[in-house]
Amino acid sequence: MGILEGGSGSLWSGGVHAVAPASSANLGPAFDALAIGLALYVEVTVETADRLEVTSEGEGSELPRDATHLAARVAAEVAGHDRLRIHVRSEVPVGRGLGSSAALAVAAAAAAGAADPLAWGHRVDGHPENAAASVLGGLVAATVGPGGPLAARLPLDLGLAFVALVPDRELPTKLARQALPVEVPLADAAFNLSRTAMLIAALADRRLLTAELFEDRLHQSYRSVALFPEAPALLDALLSAGALGTCWSGAGPSLLAVCDGPDAAAGVQADGARMLAAAGLPGRSLLLSPDLKGLSVTPQRRPG
Amino acid sequence: MGILEGGSGSLWSGGVHAVAPASSANLGPAFDALAIGLALYVEVTVETADRLEVTSEGEGSELPRDATHLAARVAAEVAGHDRLRIHVRSEVPVGRGLGSSAALAVAAAAAAGAADPLAWGHRVDGHPENAAASVLGGLVAATVGPGGPLAARLPLDLGLAFVALVPDRELPTKLARQALPVEVPLADAAFNLSRTAMLIAALADRRLLTAELFEDRLHQSYRSVALFPEAPALLDALLSAGALGTCWSGAGPSLLAVCDGPDAAAGVQADGARMLAAAGLPGRSLLLSPDLKGLSVTPQRRPG
Repeated sequence: MGILEGGSGSLWSGGVHAVAPASSANLGPAFDALAIGLALYVEVTVETADRLEVTSEGEGSELPRDATHLAARVAAEVAGHDRLRIHVRSEVPVGRGLGSSAALAVAAAAAAGAADPLAWGHRVDGHPENAAASVLGGLVAATVGPGGPLAARLPLDLGLAFVALVPDRELPTKLARQALPVEVPLADAAFNLSRTAMLIAALADRRLLTAELFEDRLHQSYRSVALFPEAPALLDALLSAGALGTCWSGAGPSLLAVCDGPDAAAGVQADGARMLAAAGLPGRSLLLSPDLKGLSVTPQRRPG
Repeated sequence: MGILEGGSGSLWSGGVHAVAPASSANLGPAFDALAIGLALYVEVTVETADRLEVTSEGEGSELPRDATHLAARVAAEVAGHDRLRIHVRSEVPVGRGLGSSAALAVAAAAAAGAADPLAWGHRVDGHPENAAASVLGGLVAATVGPGGPLAARLPLDLGLAFVALVPDRELPTKLARQALPVEVPLADAAFNLSRTAMLIAALADRRLLTAELFEDRLHQSYRSVALFPEAPALLDALLSAGALGTCWSGAGPSLLAVCDGPDAAAGVQADGARMLAAAGLPGRSLLLSPDLKGLSVTPQRRPG
């Protein structure tokens, strides 16, 4: 078992298997600032081969299995060549605001031997918080400094559980960004800053967690009007169903309910499924634990 | 020793002594969101008397000692009458961005028997973060919810020490607010949000603390241009002197240097004093520990 040097990365001859969690970014007021790892996973295996081969199963397996596949683009760039056999297995719905592209980029970069998978995830997404959650797991803060993305874990109350309402329609992040204004009132920026600081304190101690800490004035309402008019009523209904707080997941269209433990979350999940049906929105209601491990990378031995 | 009921508060017949720390709000990007308690104190004693008597010593003792004094206004409103003997002793420079009015209001309200000193501090300041630090001590998040101010402690690395450059001129908060724009770029709001989240992580673990986490795009530069053109050069010089990060303290004009322990802070303090002199700015360079106790309230026994 040697390490084959290639480009900026290095690859075990038997291949490398990397697993990264999905994530939910923004969490209401913390626009482009916070994300949380969620226990839905993307697995990528990369090994050297005679030519590029991409196979995939699970979520996103309908995407072209060729050099345009995100995992192939990232792995080839990390490895410095495309003589790679890449297998992707994903549980993360694509284009739904659950960080699928960041998780895939992070896992593909790691499986191809990248020294800094966060930087690769950041390059794909243009902002680092989903990638940070996929690398570190748990609740993360992220920002972009002069030298690149910076990220750190924040304390998370392990009694929290999550429900994601995942409509069966994509909402491309680019469209979601276009719905946002260029300028906002300074008072709204200050509002989100103070809510974000209190939300960070409350996510570490759920006894402090109340619905108003998820209030946002910078992105959700702009996006609702333009792209997802049913969202405000669904967020309110999730609160009525027992969630401690609710928000968009990333740039949507998934909606996230933060719940006081798995039992409360199970009730919110069941009600959430009924709400989607009542709103005429095909989709899924998923009960999710936080992921606390983040990225894991394992060299694979060839069979035999 | 009985409790005399009066208005919304209650007062020990021997008087009540309350002590509250100064504070530094904003901490760079966390505009109106974070504050830290600093070990400079305001003490207020309130006891019943035949008529209003106000005495004071220390900082702010040049202010009129009558019913217009902030401590008298707050204590009389809490007590429901002004038959009070009020003594104020303060180490906190007034009008310098070190939370003197919030600390005084919190201490006066508590000494007059208020059940919720934070609410009184918030009423005086119009935003709650200084009052929250004066009540809770340490690093605090604060926001205003539908039911009033909300605040919580955040973890703070106890290895941090602080230097405040305190110019000998007042910068009224009202003027400092007027220097701010009504609208700001959404990108600047997002910048401050992500810096704030990372700053919170780094204030809990100073190994993560770097100067760029104190970068701000929402208030400091607007205020510098209008009110304190020397500030940017002084902030840079404090960094060169060894500070981990620098920012305005509240609405200024004090500047805060966050340092890696008391020894580093002592060097920054000495250099800071020289910088003020070199800039032709009369003022003080203060080495300050964080306050970790917050508000303390003690019933006083009458002598004899």
